Amino acid sequence: MKPSLPKGTRDFTSEQVLKREHIFTTIKEVFATYGYAPIETPAMEALATLTGKYGEEGDKLLFKVLNNGDYLAKANAEALEAKDSDKLISSIAKRGLRYDLTVPFARFVVMHQNDLQFPFKRYQIQPVWRADRPQKGRYQEFYQCDADVIGSESLIYEAEFLQIFDTVFSKLNLKVNIRYNHRQILLGVAQYAGIEDKFVDMTVALDKKDKIGDQGVLQDLDYRGVDQEAAIKVLELVNETDPAVFEAKVSTTPAGAEGFDEIHQIQTYLSNYSPTNTFTLDPTLARGLSYYTGCIFEVESTETPMGSIAAGGRYADLTSLFGMPNMSGVGISFGAERIFDVMQTLERFPSELGNVLDALILPMDPESLGPAFDLASKLRAGGKQVDIYPKAAKMQKQMKYANARKVPFIIIIGEDERASGMYSLKNMLTGDKQETSLEELHSII
Amino acid sequence: MKPSLPKGTRDFTSEQVLKREHIFTTIKEVFATYGYAPIETPAMEALATLTGKYGEEGDKLLFKVLNNGDYLAKANAEALEAKDSDKLISSIAKRGLRYDLTVPFARFVVMHQNDLQFPFKRYQIQPVWRADRPQKGRYQEFYQCDADVIGSESLIYEAEFLQIFDTVFSKLNLKVNIRYNHRQILLGVAQYAGIEDKFVDMTVALDKKDKIGDQGVLQDLDYRGVDQEAAIKVLELVNETDPAVFEAKVSTTPAGAEGFDEIHQIQTYLSNYSPTNTFTLDPTLARGLSYYTGCIFEVESTETPMGSIAAGGRYADLTSLFGMPNMSGVGISFGAERIFDVMQTLERFPSELGNVLDALILPMDPESLGPAFDLASKLRAGGKQVDIYPKAAKMQKQMKYANARKVPFIIIIGEDERASGMYSLKNMLTGDKQETSLEELHSII
Repeated sequence: MKPSLPKGTRDFTSEQVLKREHIFTTIKEVFATYGYAPIETPAMEALATLTGKYGEEGDKLLFKVLNNGDYLAKANAEALEAKDSDKLISSIAKRGLRYDLTVPFARFVVMHQNDLQFPFKRYQIQPVWRADRPQKGRYQEFYQCDADVIGSESLIYEAEFLQIFDTVFSKLNLKVNIRYNHRQILLGVAQYAGIEDKFVDMTVALDKKDKIGDQGVLQDLDYRGVDQEAAIKVLELVNETDPAVFEAKVSTTPAGAEGFDEIHQIQTYLSNYSPTNTFTLDPTLARGLSYYTGCIFEVESTETPMGSIAAGGRYADLTSLFGMPNMSGVGISFGAERIFDVMQTLERFPSELGNVLDALILPMDPESLGPAFDLASKLRAGGKQVDIYPKAAKMQKQMKYANARKVPFIIIIGEDERASGMYSLKNMLTGDKQETSLEELHSII
Repeated sequence: MKPSLPKGTRDFTSEQVLKREHIFTTIKEVFATYGYAPIETPAMEALATLTGKYGEEGDKLLFKVLNNGDYLAKANAEALEAKDSDKLISSIAKRGLRYDLTVPFARFVVMHQNDLQFPFKRYQIQPVWRADRPQKGRYQEFYQCDADVIGSESLIYEAEFLQIFDTVFSKLNLKVNIRYNHRQILLGVAQYAGIEDKFVDMTVALDKKDKIGDQGVLQDLDYRGVDQEAAIKVLELVNETDPAVFEAKVSTTPAGAEGFDEIHQIQTYLSNYSPTNTFTLDPTLARGLSYYTGCIFEVESTETPMGSIAAGGRYADLTSLFGMPNMSGVGISFGAERIFDVMQTLERFPSELGNVLDALILPMDPESLGPAFDLASKLRAGGKQVDIYPKAAKMQKQMKYANARKVPFIIIIGEDERASGMYSLKNMLTGDKQETSLEELHSII
């Protein structure tokens, strides 16, 4: 049989794994300095845990795992008779694949609440699965990198997350714009325009402003039943170029005043911090997800167009889904797949990441295999990443292998080297050759 | 709803994740010094890739992923009518969850053969899923840690894997016995007893010798149709206490002579290597998996009974499953879950692994929150793992949180500290307190 992969899934070669690990490790190390600790949850969750958490569309995109054994024996007979695929599911599939890391996190907090210290800070870097139609840059299996703190209303955490974005991207050598806003400021805009009842519609329309422009927003608001006068008032307000004027107007509303109070507090925490990147208060930033209730964030590259590469916000009530109300929290997520694409496009991966080997040892004759093995043992004991060409093949063949594996150094052992006890070292980049002792090898390669 | 996890799956707390990562990182670093590079394959494989690779029993233990959308529309009508669960599967599930890392590795090699350099050395550390009945120490989702080299018959790799076992377990601070044998030596035993046609039966029976004893082996061989005289000849041979006598007898057979030739070659490679642990040639070691054709390995703790914690062997033909014949290889696998249990039992995890925080900053009044934030920023910029108690709560409450999070140091900021510009540092282990400057903090915590 000719093997293949399911659509939307990928193999990762060594180079890709090492580059991806570079991103994950950078993010992890920054999370750790802020006191976030890792947790992991299983790939398979109870389907009941996942169903209904991502809207009707999300339910369709969940991967369901078929029950094992004679699953049809307990199948819903009526649904089976009617060939009703949707209705049959719950009787033949008890498990589903994780769709994101947020719902499993909420479940984890509720299940482990007696063993956790609140505020609880965790990070989680694991794959998720979605049955989306695969397309360029969109996969059915991909990684999410999340950090959340839950159990505190302190705005210190919003300030920390702004620092975390700044630090991670500066360590990854990427320039970004870190935009933030507050759902209460958005609500203030709606109150100012007298359309508080159309708040969700307004945020959805504003969220698309970058893509569809002012006219598009007006059309969308009209379609959503917002009257034109109010829609124009919204647009004029968010297009106000003087931040002080914008703030003064929005702060006349109860929600707007509250939102700006919090934003000022966050800005005060950061007043002695010098960011490498830009923090931008953007009153049009809305974030689609309806569970955000406070400050919201979105990060974009300023060097190449890619859309949002990290985002997050404050939520009031994530764990109430599982019967644990009033746990305010803040969470962010790094879009590792997009960050990978940005770094690949801008060639920002450290060049040494591809080097799996420090040196390759080439035995010139069968008698040199033993000495090659001994040399490799000694270099490896010193932590060097070394390999041996496994037989005394022709020099040309061995060199071809060395080139293909992109080794920075080759070490040749043949009759002369066995006699002298020295090793012929060749720098594959410069072409320089030299006779070296074991000690010299340790320090050069 | 009260949340729960599917049976056989687990959450990992921070402490568990950090301990597991300690094991994975140790193994990875050793693999890397031997020139092994990481690859990753998707959790979901085409069900056709997995089916039939693990025997009939294995097929039953595969997790199948239900097709999305109206999956019943294309369901096998006949199987549906007959309520034949097995027969229906292929028409409603195209994907399955990875059952091990060996079959995905073989598929990877075949699909990427034009981009790989042979011999190709790869390692892979990822979860696998099996619908086994859950019990103590057995899960439906667990990690495997494999390394394989494919495309060479060189015995250098067998010698390297013995070193890798020795190095990994010595770095993990575990004492082990590394047993090895050769399938041709086992075949030689069968030839010596005149039961070459019962070779597989003999290996299966011998593999259980530790558990069922000599009488058990005799009964099993009898049950498998081996005549008693031959069975006794097998047992006498493998119970021979003088290795030289054993070798002389087995080497009179063609297969035995070949097996010992290879074993000697491997031993010669290792003649200048001083292992920390014991290498033991064990003629009863058989390994259940039928695809092994050459040298085989099995590692056990000598400090606590746990069964095999690592194993492997040479195979002649792994990729022929996918139409690429004659690719000899050697592979090993570390049983990370069992290694975890051994290290937990023997308390061999480094004690600092649990320390998520270097220090916790406690603000004594609302005015100290800003200075606490600034101090945290500076310590984090220096790579310290620091957190802030997020509000000016009572000292007692803050100390309780500090104790629960097991922080080694607390840093107190209140009115006095703000006035003096110094920080009160308390060592939570010794109880020692001192006034410190920022520079002192950087060096102490």
